[in-house]
Amino acid sequence: MATVEQMTAAVHGYVEAFDKGDPELAVALFAAEATVEDPVGTPVKRGLDEIRAFYTASMQTGAKLRLEGPIRCAADSAAFAFRVQLTLEGKMVTVDVIDIFRFNDAGKVIEMKAYFGPDNMTGF
Amino acid sequence: MATVEQMTAAVHGYVEAFDKGDPELAVALFAAEATVEDPVGTPVKRGLDEIRAFYTASMQTGAKLRLEGPIRCAADSAAFAFRVQLTLEGKMVTVDVIDIFRFNDAGKVIEMKAYFGPDNMTGF
Repeated sequence: MATVEQMTAAVHGYVEAFDKGDPELAVALFAAEATVEDPVGTPVKRGLDEIRAFYTASMQTGAKLRLEGPIRCAADSAAFAFRVQLTLEGKMVTVDVIDIFRFNDAGKVIEMKAYFGPDNMTGF
Repeated sequence: MATVEQMTAAVHGYVEAFDKGDPELAVALFAAEATVEDPVGTPVKRGLDEIRAFYTASMQTGAKLRLEGPIRCAADSAAFAFRVQLTLEGKMVTVDVIDIFRFNDAGKVIEMKAYFGPDNMTGF
């Protein structure tokens, strides 16, 4: 099972990937067969090619993440709350999100789910 | 699908159940076939009898919940961060938690998962 240290490092690496605007830093956190559902209820991205395309597009909005409160690690999973700032059609937008990362034994994310909805967005 | 209003009311009802120390108010939020995994990685409680026993024991610690940041609703699920204060062996303890509630079409919780670990507890 992934350790708390591995999971914590992955979450901080994810935030840093956005800070640097480098999708490859995000992709490197995922297992080859990983799935990403962001937000929950939208089509699931499967595998590194779809995940790369997703983060490349996400980072083109200039999105930056700020963690809100501690990372919660339980068994093979990490849950964390954060606020995203990004630019859409010239407007600064903020989105409050909670992500769940589930890890494989190698410490890679095998399942990611992001929770947010219209009520969590401001600035539109 | 459950509405954002139903899901938001359920989360506030959950906090209120702890405020009042009334396990039945918590149990009433769940579907008959619901599962509770709290924290993730521990044995899953199945059905209202096991869920009632779990919340009865939980509330005997005097646990009170304070939401931290907005509730995030996505599709059939609500994610929320909170801090719990409770008393264990005469000591005041705080635990930082993130819960995921998944709802059925009737607006009842069918799956609950709580994320926290030893690093999220203070006061022991």
